Amino acid sequence: MRIPEDVRKDIPLTQEVIYFDNTATSLTPIPVVKAMDEYYLKYRANVHRGVHKLSQMATHKYEESRKIVADFIGAKFEEIVFTKNTSESLNLVALGLEWKKGDRIVTTPYEHHSDLLPWQRVARKYGAKLEIIEGDDEGNLDLSDAEKKIKGAKLVAVQHVSNALGVIHEVEEIGKMAKEEGAIFVVDAAQSVGHMEVDVRKIHADFLAFSGHKGPLGPTGIGVLYINEEMFDIFDPPLVGGGTIEDVDLCCYKLTAPPERYEAGTPNIGGAIGLAAGIKYIEKIGLDKIEKQEHKLVKRTTEGLTELEIPWYGPRNLKKHAGVVSFNVPPLHPHDVAAILDEHNIMVRSGHHCALPVMKRLGINGTVRASFHVYNSIEEVETFLGVMEELVKSLR
Amino acid sequence: MRIPEDVRKDIPLTQEVIYFDNTATSLTPIPVVKAMDEYYLKYRANVHRGVHKLSQMATHKYEESRKIVADFIGAKFEEIVFTKNTSESLNLVALGLEWKKGDRIVTTPYEHHSDLLPWQRVARKYGAKLEIIEGDDEGNLDLSDAEKKIKGAKLVAVQHVSNALGVIHEVEEIGKMAKEEGAIFVVDAAQSVGHMEVDVRKIHADFLAFSGHKGPLGPTGIGVLYINEEMFDIFDPPLVGGGTIEDVDLCCYKLTAPPERYEAGTPNIGGAIGLAAGIKYIEKIGLDKIEKQEHKLVKRTTEGLTELEIPWYGPRNLKKHAGVVSFNVPPLHPHDVAAILDEHNIMVRSGHHCALPVMKRLGINGTVRASFHVYNSIEEVETFLGVMEELVKSLR
Repeated sequence: MRIPEDVRKDIPLTQEVIYFDNTATSLTPIPVVKAMDEYYLKYRANVHRGVHKLSQMATHKYEESRKIVADFIGAKFEEIVFTKNTSESLNLVALGLEWKKGDRIVTTPYEHHSDLLPWQRVARKYGAKLEIIEGDDEGNLDLSDAEKKIKGAKLVAVQHVSNALGVIHEVEEIGKMAKEEGAIFVVDAAQSVGHMEVDVRKIHADFLAFSGHKGPLGPTGIGVLYINEEMFDIFDPPLVGGGTIEDVDLCCYKLTAPPERYEAGTPNIGGAIGLAAGIKYIEKIGLDKIEKQEHKLVKRTTEGLTELEIPWYGPRNLKKHAGVVSFNVPPLHPHDVAAILDEHNIMVRSGHHCALPVMKRLGINGTVRASFHVYNSIEEVETFLGVMEELVKSLR
Repeated sequence: MRIPEDVRKDIPLTQEVIYFDNTATSLTPIPVVKAMDEYYLKYRANVHRGVHKLSQMATHKYEESRKIVADFIGAKFEEIVFTKNTSESLNLVALGLEWKKGDRIVTTPYEHHSDLLPWQRVARKYGAKLEIIEGDDEGNLDLSDAEKKIKGAKLVAVQHVSNALGVIHEVEEIGKMAKEEGAIFVVDAAQSVGHMEVDVRKIHADFLAFSGHKGPLGPTGIGVLYINEEMFDIFDPPLVGGGTIEDVDLCCYKLTAPPERYEAGTPNIGGAIGLAAGIKYIEKIGLDKIEKQEHKLVKRTTEGLTELEIPWYGPRNLKKHAGVVSFNVPPLHPHDVAAILDEHNIMVRSGHHCALPVMKRLGINGTVRASFHVYNSIEEVETFLGVMEELVKSLR
């Protein structure tokens, strides 16, 4: 495939707008929409426990989707649980483990609220203690402080890539530290899966969460929780009901084996099928090509912003910078900058990006954020930089 | 609209199979698929906090969907929370309330596992006490026993319609009893919403749960939790993160107002839009016509089965019998009967229907279940009865 031309052909919206809001959600390729439509119009049925042919077909496609997800991140079939989004996945981990007073949870100052609030809730409810690994204003973690803090921890939760700063964290090294301490390692991979290689074994993840609608080019309403099989015995499903059991009496229930143990009720069948179609599409392009394209876009964007003397956040080390560029145009409010870009048909996000502690640390009320996927082009970045140049001139 | 002819035209699968598995999930009308496709191809973006036009459009459509759901069940806008399915909705109630030892939870012997296990889990974890209202083998509740059991209860959880027996429970009367005792009233409306009128005020519901993919003819992966505004102060969101907060520091968070308070992370935007399209479609048909059509189908089905001396379960009082008919053809296993029907292109469900206590009570390992929606026809029922007649003859 020619990058990005051939991908753009599969995504009609790329011909209408410059979409730089990929950290929030991605555009959807036609093959993904087609896969879902096929389910809704050709073999619409519920999965499992159905003898009839439509149900058999739906079950086959649903479980095939699970296999595609598992292979994509180096997991086993039964280690993949479908949820509705990353936030749910991370909350389930917090809700399904046993906590006691004094349990230590280690995280970073850069987490998305969805990888911070669940642990704060545990701290509040059970008297667990939350500890934060030191880091700098670019988002780089102090790994020697990480090593110190992780000592004796019960759980370590780290984002793979910051949605606010674009920094790629050293999850492999931190995972190793957690494992050496016998701590549970949780990875928020919302901004990495679909953008770069993610292998759950390589990074020593016990739990890993991501959403279908971001990197993997899938639909909304489908998320993934990877559960390392070693966790099956200690991780109690917080959501129980249809599908999760082996036996039930009026008094009590006996759980069935994973992955069903962790999926209560009718899953998002259409969503899982759409997610699998997205992953297959990603695989057809190749993760290496996606990473390369985003790298090129980030390089040109940060260079261009620097030339225009527009302050941008995140790591100066380009190798640690994923496809997310946060910046500001003082004295303008981020929302005003976003509105001006919108007038030029350029879609960016503005605000605190659900990472208020990062904003407070930087002493700002928010940023403008341009974030990329493989279908974005250098020409689009040049158009964006042209608008920014005009804007900066108008302010002087 | 002519019932069912005009509805059948909008659902291509009705021309290919006889689909009698509506209790598990419904078929999808083309307008629902189109509404979702439009989102994925024309205004694909994340909701809230986005200044750009695609996000504005997505937010408008998403919140409009919430309004459509609210109006459909007589709720206020902010009382509607989108989840992934009924099971999640019910589990969230159990996870978000405060429990202490001895708290009494009252339910019925006919609940789907998803309205039983969450309460069993609360009983196990906190020492709450589960009490079961008496009832007969047809699924009729003993209302005087209900009154006794509800005295002093903290929470009463009742299904509106049984997915295994088809019986319609007296939720209005039970809700009144609960309110008089100051108990929280939870309704599992998975099998009623979209099939008959459901008004949350009329039945005194504090929480009410249903799925988009069943009665409302929506897609999979979208469910609803209605939360009576009086519960906002005592119902703590079990899932926290992106979107649920007003402010966050590294130590702690401050929640925002409902409904956002209860929706962590990117919601199923496409799913909510699809659900709203399903509800609009239901409203175009008219709930009264849907109820009438299903009543006609149940009447003919139960009469036909009786003529063939095939034992069927559920209420003899047809007024209390929703569009679900459970039966058995001894000595055949329910799955074998379902397989024979499948060979005749008739899709039914077989097994315990996630209601094992009901099956154990009746002393059976499961049932065959034919369940209807408005697009099913009397001709289809006649075809089904013809196959059943042949089957019964072959066994004699």
